[in-house]
Amino acid sequence: MKTACILLIGNEILSGRTQDQNAPYLAARLGELGVKVMEMRVIRDDEAIIVEAVNSARATHDYVFTTGGIGPTHDDITTPSIAKAFGVAYALNPAALKLLVDRYGEAKLNDARRRMAHTPEGATLIENSISAAPGFQMANVYVMAGVPEIMRVMFESIAESFAGAAPVASVTVRCDLPEGAIAAELGTLQGRFLDVEIGSYPFYSETGAGCDLVLRSTDPNRIAQAADQVRDLVRDLGGNPSSKNGAP
Amino acid sequence: MKTACILLIGNEILSGRTQDQNAPYLAARLGELGVKVMEMRVIRDDEAIIVEAVNSARATHDYVFTTGGIGPTHDDITTPSIAKAFGVAYALNPAALKLLVDRYGEAKLNDARRRMAHTPEGATLIENSISAAPGFQMANVYVMAGVPEIMRVMFESIAESFAGAAPVASVTVRCDLPEGAIAAELGTLQGRFLDVEIGSYPFYSETGAGCDLVLRSTDPNRIAQAADQVRDLVRDLGGNPSSKNGAP
Repeated sequence: MKTACILLIGNEILSGRTQDQNAPYLAARLGELGVKVMEMRVIRDDEAIIVEAVNSARATHDYVFTTGGIGPTHDDITTPSIAKAFGVAYALNPAALKLLVDRYGEAKLNDARRRMAHTPEGATLIENSISAAPGFQMANVYVMAGVPEIMRVMFESIAESFAGAAPVASVTVRCDLPEGAIAAELGTLQGRFLDVEIGSYPFYSETGAGCDLVLRSTDPNRIAQAADQVRDLVRDLGGNPSSKNGAP
Repeated sequence: MKTACILLIGNEILSGRTQDQNAPYLAARLGELGVKVMEMRVIRDDEAIIVEAVNSARATHDYVFTTGGIGPTHDDITTPSIAKAFGVAYALNPAALKLLVDRYGEAKLNDARRRMAHTPEGATLIENSISAAPGFQMANVYVMAGVPEIMRVMFESIAESFAGAAPVASVTVRCDLPEGAIAAELGTLQGRFLDVEIGSYPFYSETGAGCDLVLRSTDPNRIAQAADQVRDLVRDLGGNPSSKNGAP
């Protein structure tokens, strides 16, 4: 399976002001496409930090997806930082300029907006069907906007290029026993299904403690076999397995 | 200012299944306490990855806060991994054992639950007033639960120990002009207020594009001065500044 790192660039997330919506979206979509997200990082709008993080991530993972910092204001420094990470010039991109001229007209295309027509030299543009200013790709690094609506149309415009490997499927068995009551047996069961990742996520409700047992694999048949055994295990220990919405 | 790294440990966040709530909470609270969050990382439940991330973060930042992976199931490997990162034994902690015996009684304290009474040798416990099983501190690393309600009571039980430095205050000026129309002048203004961090966050509404201009600093007087100038700037450029809820 191909691997990916999601790099969120923006002080507003680190301050707690903004709750990021991009990483969960990308993680879910990449999983559907068969790409395994190995890491997410949120970093500051700081050139040295961005350069280090991008170079580390692109050397380690098959794909790197960044969001944020490609707008027209002084705190938007992702694009020149990516150019620096790749050791290439930060330059006006004629194709990007044309998109912005078509959108704003020459009269409204002030210097700040012209910044959004710059990319690292050699970049391939990523379409922005909402507000024209494009994202771009440099080798295995995909640079997208931070505004969730725009990030999504950018990602969807390139999503099919990542498809191919088997997608990861998942089944959740809701268990009405606390995880401490099933942990030992569940660990043994995990040992019999090394190709199915079994996670246990506790919850607390008015009727007591329980846990969601989430089975993930690229092989739906193995998930189904493991899920049957998980349900049997819950019953053997005196509980009732159900689906997450309460159905048996 | 002291700096911090937030380390979220859990495959469920990387798969997109779970939307993390802990990082935004910690970021906001740490800001109030005067601690600057420099980075957030989400990493897999994998010993080698946890060891590398913890050792890198604790060498770089004043504080490291981890969430997740300290429960009783096979996928909860944070505690032994932290022991490995510090090069100390993973061992039964008598004080933690007493908390769990008091909670569950000897009869229900099976081997899986006894795992939650283990810590790295030399750890200081962090109280869990909800479900007893404690978090712990090793030097500048604070290890907490992933369940948001439990993470919060754990953090609040130690929060006052981080207070001291001046907290970061913020003011948001809502601007009804698109950020491309104010970017150049805003950059000039930022140059006059190097002690106030000014961020611009675009939004799109039925009445057109606008942006929230967020001013952050430990000095409320400097924020107020900068905010006055930001409002003047928006007016000079033909817009109307307001607070985020629309008040002038």
